[in-house]
Formats: sequence, C-alpha cells, structure tokens
Amino acid sequence: MKVNAYGAYAGDKPLEPLQITRRTPGAHDVQIDIAYCGICHSDLHQVRTEWAGTQFPCVPGHEIVGRVVTVGAHVSGFKPGDLVGIGCIVDSCKHCEECDAGLENYCDNLIGTYNFPTPDEPGWTLGGYSQKIVVHERYVLRIRHPEEQLAAVAPLLCAGITTYSPLRHWNAGPGKKVGIVGIGGLGHMGIKLAHAMGAHVVAFTTSESKRADAKMLGADEVVVSRNADEMAAHAKSFDLIVNTVAAPHNLDAFLALLKRDGTLTLVGAPASPHPSPEVFNLIFKRRSIAGSMIGGIPETQEMLDFCAEHGIVSDIELIRADEINAAYERMLKGDVKYRFVIDNATLTA
Amino acid sequence: MKVNAYGAYAGDKPLEPLQITRRTPGAHDVQIDIAYCGICHSDLHQVRTEWAGTQFPCVPGHEIVGRVVTVGAHVSGFKPGDLVGIGCIVDSCKHCEECDAGLENYCDNLIGTYNFPTPDEPGWTLGGYSQKIVVHERYVLRIRHPEEQLAAVAPLLCAGITTYSPLRHWNAGPGKKVGIVGIGGLGHMGIKLAHAMGAHVVAFTTSESKRADAKMLGADEVVVSRNADEMAAHAKSFDLIVNTVAAPHNLDAFLALLKRDGTLTLVGAPASPHPSPEVFNLIFKRRSIAGSMIGGIPETQEMLDFCAEHGIVSDIELIRADEINAAYERMLKGDVKYRFVIDNATLTA
Repeated sequence: MKVNAYGAYAGDKPLEPLQITRRTPGAHDVQIDIAYCGICHSDLHQVRTEWAGTQFPCVPGHEIVGRVVTVGAHVSGFKPGDLVGIGCIVDSCKHCEECDAGLENYCDNLIGTYNFPTPDEPGWTLGGYSQKIVVHERYVLRIRHPEEQLAAVAPLLCAGITTYSPLRHWNAGPGKKVGIVGIGGLGHMGIKLAHAMGAHVVAFTTSESKRADAKMLGADEVVVSRNADEMAAHAKSFDLIVNTVAAPHNLDAFLALLKRDGTLTLVGAPASPHPSPEVFNLIFKRRSIAGSMIGGIPETQEMLDFCAEHGIVSDIELIRADEINAAYERMLKGDVKYRFVIDNATLTA
Repeated sequence: MKVNAYGAYAGDKPLEPLQITRRTPGAHDVQIDIAYCGICHSDLHQVRTEWAGTQFPCVPGHEIVGRVVTVGAHVSGFKPGDLVGIGCIVDSCKHCEECDAGLENYCDNLIGTYNFPTPDEPGWTLGGYSQKIVVHERYVLRIRHPEEQLAAVAPLLCAGITTYSPLRHWNAGPGKKVGIVGIGGLGHMGIKLAHAMGAHVVAFTTSESKRADAKMLGADEVVVSRNADEMAAHAKSFDLIVNTVAAPHNLDAFLALLKRDGTLTLVGAPASPHPSPEVFNLIFKRRSIAGSMIGGIPETQEMLDFCAEHGIVSDIELIRADEINAAYERMLKGDVKYRFVIDNATLTA
C-alpha cells in the first residue's frame, strides 16, 4: 500500500513530502495508523549523512504512536483500535542470547526502524514520518496513557527508554543519588524518571538559565557544571550519573563525583572522541564508565507502564510536517523544550 | 629502634644501605622481623620520582612477609612466632564507610606502606626493604602457606591481591570467560588465580615467546594481541578482562572482545593517558571500563587463604639487597619471571 511520508532524497537536501510503500501485513504483523512521531537527534544525524551508510530516500522517525488498524491471523496481543507505539527496533534475529533475554537492543542483527536492511521496498526500513507502518507484533508496545496524552507519549519510545534502561540497570531508586547530565530531549526524561523512581536527583547543565526548569522537571538539586565550586561540593557522592551529552567533553569532572563503585553511564556517542579519561579516577574508587543503548522490548513496555502509572510524558512542541526542516535548525540551537513531535495528520500528498 | 634498610636519598641516586628508626610497638601494634620483600614496579616509580611527592630518604617495599617478634598488650590475633604479611596498607581512618566495609584500600585517608604521612620518624612511612616493621594489628595478614614457600608468598601482598580483587568483584569463576592482559608480575598472578577460581582463562601478550609460559601458568588459551585475526576470533565473548598493562595502549581492541555487560578492568594507571576509547564500543553491548586498586584487608586475608588452599605462590627470583639496583634495570627490560624478591637477611649495616 502507498502512504504519504516526509523524507529526504539526499543528505544536503531538505526533507519533503514523498510516497512510500508499506508491506501487506503478514500473519504476525500489526498495521498501525501513525498519529504522532517524535523527532530525535539521530534522525538529523542519519538524514544529513553525519552518520555513515544513509540510504535515500530516507524517512526518519522512531518515536511512533498510533492506533492499530489491522492485525495478522496469528496476532493475539493486539486488536484494531488499540493504542500502540513503535520505538527504535522493528526486527531482530529472535533466537540469540540477547533476544532470548528480551534484550533485542543488543542483538547483533537488530533491525532499526529506519535505514536498516529489509526485504520490503525499497530495501531499507522507513521510519515514522509517515502515515502508516507495519511491524511484527513482537516489537509493538501497548500504550496505557489517556489518549489525550498520546503526542507527548511518542518521545518515550526513544528518549524515555534510553534513560529508563540505565536508571533501572544501575538501580536508581530510594537512597540513591543519581545525576543526569544535559537537560535536553533525553535529559529531561532522565530527570522525570529518576525522580519518579525515588532517587535523589541532581541535574547538571552548562546553562545557568536552565536551573529553574530542571527543578520543575523533578531535580532535587541543579549544578552548573562550569562552576568548579559547585562541582566540588558533590565530590565522591553519586551512585550513578547518566550522561546524555554527545558533544565531546571532560568526563573526569563527572568521574570525580562518583562514590566508590559508582558508574558514569554514557547514552550518547560523540562524533569525535571525548578527551581520554584519567585511569586514576577509575582505580581510586573502583569506578566504572559504561554505555547503554535504548532498551529491550519487555523493558520498553515496563517503562511505558511505569510512565502511565506515574503520569509521566515528555514535554513537547507539536509541529506540522512542513515544519520539520525548521525544527531541525532549532534543535541544532537547543531551541526546543524538550522534544518536537510531528502531527502525522499533516502528512498530505 | 634502629634497623638496617635499603633506600635512596634522591630520585637520581641508586638505592644504598641506610639505617632507619621503627617505633616502639604500641598496645595494638605487631612488630615483625621481615624475612622477604617483593619488588613492585610502584617501588621504582616512587623512588625515581616518576610519581609525584617522593620524600627522601625513601625506603620502598609493600610485599612484606616475616615473623612476629612482639605484640602490644591489646593484640589478640597474633603472637610471637606467627608467619605474617604486610601489603600496601599500614593504616586508614578506621571509621569511614570504606573502612567499615573492610575496603580500607578505598579509604580517603589510606596510609600506604611507604611515602605516606605518619607521626613516626622521619614523618613518612618507610617500607619493606628493611629488617623490621611495626604495624597496627588491623593491617597484619596471617600466612598459612608452608614456611619454605615464604619468599614466593611475598608478591601475593600486592600483585596477588591487585588481581584477585577484580576477579572476585566481577565474579570470575566456572562458566565465565576471563582475559588477563599482560604476563608480568601482576598478570602471571591473574592467570594463576583466575584458573584456580575455575574460569576459562585467556592470556593476552604482545610476545609470541610468552605463549608456552602462559599455558604453564594456567591459561586455557593464549592470544598474541598484535595479531588481528587471533583477536577477532574472540570478539564479543568475554565476561571480564583484567588489564595489567600500564603503558598507554588501544583499549578498544579489548572492549570489542567483551560480550554484553562485560567489563574491562584496569589495574595499572599509565603515566600518559591511553588513547580515548570509542564510546560506541561501550554503548553497543552495555560494556564497562572500570578500575580496581589492590584490595581491602579482609579480602587480602581471603586471597592468602585461597592461595594456601590451592598451593598458589608467585614465580620469583630471589636476590640480595645489593642486587636491587640491577633488578630495577632488569625490570625495565621485562627481564624477570615474574617477580624479584629480596632476601632481607642480606640487609647488612
């Protein structure tokens, strides 16, 4: 079936309306009418060929929410009318150790929601800047939020799970002191989630101007990381710091804030490396630097349910499809609180 | 009391015989006749002022074994004649969270066995290249090996615990695949210990010539890390890699060998930083880079008991005190299998 979409024909061209083909649903497939799609920084990196291997036309988008239209004969978990989401993963091998553990995000044969190989036309996956999508039921998430929150749920599918997963894995919760570095699309979700988990949350920002906002998001304390005295006051005190900043920066400043056995978890990968961290900072307190990438399907469902239960959504700015290019420019200036979400009803032919 | 020792009066001078003063044992002190002392690379770094803050005269040595001579009135755990050891720690605050947890090695007020502040003459601690030492009972370890193995037990007090602690902390054991990078003083102990713990042990070396030796030490497999094909054959397969190499080198080559949730633990700190590791290598499999520093007193005792039970000692070359300077030169060339140990009976006035 042909559906309207928004994408680019080349890395140096703006995104524009185009038509794409979605497969006829198979026995295990769920066909979804997409209501909203969040805009992630990854979308911009991939479509502008700042990351390698972009296939054109490229239709980005992996923060997808909508409603089930039809389901295949063997689909038991979903029915037409259900509110559902699709995140960064639309397929994986389904039989490796990672898939068996529900950690499809670490499967070596993970198929991302856009720009990954697929037998479907045109040979690579096409994302959520489109009217419809067809996905194997394993990768479909149930949304239990009220329907009026649906647009603001979309960013949970990437920004939400990307911060939720490391917070859970490294045991954020009551009695734990947790830092969130960067107050953007990911960071603002990290603050809300860590707060809801019961941790003592400290937000780190380079902008004095974000202090009040961070408090409103749920931070117990806010540290301007350019201020050495403010940083020093938190030395050796954190159990976990989730660092959402992808631009290269000094990791030692944050390592020094970890207590013994503390972890600095990176969820953003810089285009050029961070300055090399001091090994002494790791050895002296048995500290770790770790990485974490989105989350598996069961944990993504757990995150959505946790958010529904705690009334958590993303702070968003809803835009029309023809505002996507302008939104990209504003994202580059950090001019968004905190996530753009596309109203997919505006995807006209 | 005055005792013979071997030390240096300046960073650019060789070590030479000298006399030092040991305090009269207090109520909680144990006075020890030192039989043997291992030579650690740290000794060389400190005495040659390659590390900052060296106080002269400097008497190195923190791999100390010997026999109790006298004990203070309140000492209940040791009596004259006992075989004992002293490692890298001779004091700590005794009341912080780390000390309470038996992790004196991570106490902010750790007092190392040499070159740390003390009220004793001359104002900084003096190490094991000496006839006697007086230490608070808390930091004295019991040795259960047969006496004829005593010289070869000495290196367990630093090289042994430095590798034992991360192996235990990151759960080396049956069903786990564990790498040991570098086959020197630390690495040869890491191989023996990981093997005795029941792990599948892979030794990494840059020298083809060390292949047979590594197998004899207990490695199940040996990989020459300069050989890209050999490295690639182990991609994504390790639970833990303990890296004993302090010279700056490419950590990414080892990160790529870790499976999901695997850890690369550094126990040596390079004088100049390693090349900055790729964040993608951490994110893609939720891998960690960690550090670990020696071990606490209870774990050091556990390690000594484990080694006694499994018949594990260090491979050593016993030398006279007047061979220390020559031994340092040979260490710099890697010309030792695998630890020099001083016969302290040769410390003449």
